Amino acid sequence: MANNNNNNNTNNDAFNFAAFSSALNGGAKSAELIGAMKRKLEAFAGEDLTELPIDFLDSLSPAVKRRVEVLQKIQDEHDELKEKFFEEKAALEAKYQVLYQPLYTKRYEIVNGITEVEAEGAANETPADPEVVAMATAADTAKSEEKGIPSFWLVAMKNNDILAKEITKHDEKALKFLEDIKYTKIAAPKGFKLEFFFHKNPFFSNSVLRKTYQVVNEDDPILENAIGTEIDWLDGKCLTAKKVMKKKARMGSNNAKPINKTVTCESFFNFFDPPEIPENHLNIDEEVAEELQKVMEEDYEIGSEIRDKIIPHAVSWFTGEAAVGEFYEDDDEDDDLYDEDSEEDDDDEEDKVGEVQQGEKPAECKYQ
Amino acid sequence: MANNNNNNNTNNDAFNFAAFSSALNGGAKSAELIGAMKRKLEAFAGEDLTELPIDFLDSLSPAVKRRVEVLQKIQDEHDELKEKFFEEKAALEAKYQVLYQPLYTKRYEIVNGITEVEAEGAANETPADPEVVAMATAADTAKSEEKGIPSFWLVAMKNNDILAKEITKHDEKALKFLEDIKYTKIAAPKGFKLEFFFHKNPFFSNSVLRKTYQVVNEDDPILENAIGTEIDWLDGKCLTAKKVMKKKARMGSNNAKPINKTVTCESFFNFFDPPEIPENHLNIDEEVAEELQKVMEEDYEIGSEIRDKIIPHAVSWFTGEAAVGEFYEDDDEDDDLYDEDSEEDDDDEEDKVGEVQQGEKPAECKYQ
Repeated sequence: MANNNNNNNTNNDAFNFAAFSSALNGGAKSAELIGAMKRKLEAFAGEDLTELPIDFLDSLSPAVKRRVEVLQKIQDEHDELKEKFFEEKAALEAKYQVLYQPLYTKRYEIVNGITEVEAEGAANETPADPEVVAMATAADTAKSEEKGIPSFWLVAMKNNDILAKEITKHDEKALKFLEDIKYTKIAAPKGFKLEFFFHKNPFFSNSVLRKTYQVVNEDDPILENAIGTEIDWLDGKCLTAKKVMKKKARMGSNNAKPINKTVTCESFFNFFDPPEIPENHLNIDEEVAEELQKVMEEDYEIGSEIRDKIIPHAVSWFTGEAAVGEFYEDDDEDDDLYDEDSEEDDDDEEDKVGEVQQGEKPAECKYQ
Repeated sequence: MANNNNNNNTNNDAFNFAAFSSALNGGAKSAELIGAMKRKLEAFAGEDLTELPIDFLDSLSPAVKRRVEVLQKIQDEHDELKEKFFEEKAALEAKYQVLYQPLYTKRYEIVNGITEVEAEGAANETPADPEVVAMATAADTAKSEEKGIPSFWLVAMKNNDILAKEITKHDEKALKFLEDIKYTKIAAPKGFKLEFFFHKNPFFSNSVLRKTYQVVNEDDPILENAIGTEIDWLDGKCLTAKKVMKKKARMGSNNAKPINKTVTCESFFNFFDPPEIPENHLNIDEEVAEELQKVMEEDYEIGSEIRDKIIPHAVSWFTGEAAVGEFYEDDDEDDDLYDEDSEEDDDDEEDKVGEVQQGEKPAECKYQ
């Protein structure tokens, strides 16, 4: 289905979470991934790694100790059973992924105009009125450039609160070229990957952007690594960073020598450049650790939202049905999906760039 | 196994989450329960419930609309498959709960001294040395009052970071009487319940304390209700609230009339009195909503920790093995589990009580 001849640097980006994660092992359930990470980071930040009371067992009376040893064997039996449960559950999930696949393929083909639906598809309930069919055909011909469902994935994602917050007006122009998003479970190392397939577009040369989450234990996931594809932006088209010419403002004549600066931009595409855990994590400053934790939380939340909601229910997100029960929030900055012409006044660009350089959070970059 | 003749008021506590939750429907996965709640509460607090662009579909060309309609049918096929997946998954989970049960029963019997383990159980690897066996038997006789594994559940819980933070020194005296914790999935309404079985104890008359979490959709859980058993504290033994005699301090003679006040105490047993969502949730103050959300998050985190870690792996938590990978945190206030005599100086009780009344968070109450 989607184009696969992409660059291969997805897994070469050596984000070093390995040292960070080697000390972590199973135990946190999915819902606690973030809490567990938080505590880890807090522990790292504070270097308050205390020893367990390993002599506790020795302090027990021989009779109690013997009972504990029997309990440990019972625990082992339990854990073997649980292992089998996880295997059966994984097999069940795999079975259903196989069953979903033909439906996802059909969706892909309709969305991208590879397959046209039968006219009867829509007019099933009422007998085809030749006049109406003629009108519809005329309308179709008039919009013959409208293959498939334009902006399908963009609209689906924009209707989701969490994703809408990530998508800037400029991102929308690139996300219109999204032809499919695929989820794949991975086995070694455990985790999952999301693949974003793109039509040829004026922003980057990659045809697929990948985001991979590696976890220590897929059933009690503790995030070990998050890896994204490096995006090969076309000249001057980068949405995640921008070179700006900044004049020495308010200091002299118009002939002041401009300074070249690269500023980070708010962009959905930052999703493919996830945070890196410093190798020497024991020396992480507490504030840095907290910020890192927050960014990782948000990153994982976005990935989960795409995996669990957008991919399986893309049509309902496209139509807006999926968002109805979610108390669609009114976010002023995200209101302009259907209002492409509402470009802001860019006169104050230099000031805004100045803010970006000083502030912690990058602002949305302005492009003319 | 554990005693069941408890009071029945578990499900009579009419916490009204119903109105709150009726507007919520599926869509959030387990890991996002909290995030989803947060957004709901934010939306309620701000009353910024905007309408979806319902005319969006009408704005599409007839051809695109027809394609979307076909996609909706494909989505329906997908959702039917997913429903079957959930059914199969639930059956799988139920099957394994049945397989675990005999192991949990054995554990219960050993922990509570109902079944004694064979002396050979511990000495399996080495041939029984008559001298060692004699010594062990002597030691056992000396500690003959030590039935089963004393403080098993207390120690297991104290070795877990999240739970340790909830357990005060005073709670420990009551939690020593815990004989078992059971998890049960519930079907109508969907969710799960935790049951804490207690030996006869000097703190309360209930023999089982229950905590029930009801969710809108068990597979995409959004919390609908949390219900706890009302604890029948014995006279003067309440750990969650305390009547204090507060003198009109620093105002006059020793004969000043004392005032009776009831103060809330920090206690694990507050777990059985979960927060209540105000009925008229649309008028919740933003700060109140945030505080409520935080408390609900913490409450659900504790419940999940007990369900997913403590119950299935109690032995590993008791021995401390389970905590090794979790970077056991040094919490000064929780260090005294193995140091029962380190009672603090209670001279400053009145001042501390005063803090409780003014502050937001109750302090640990002092009992002599």
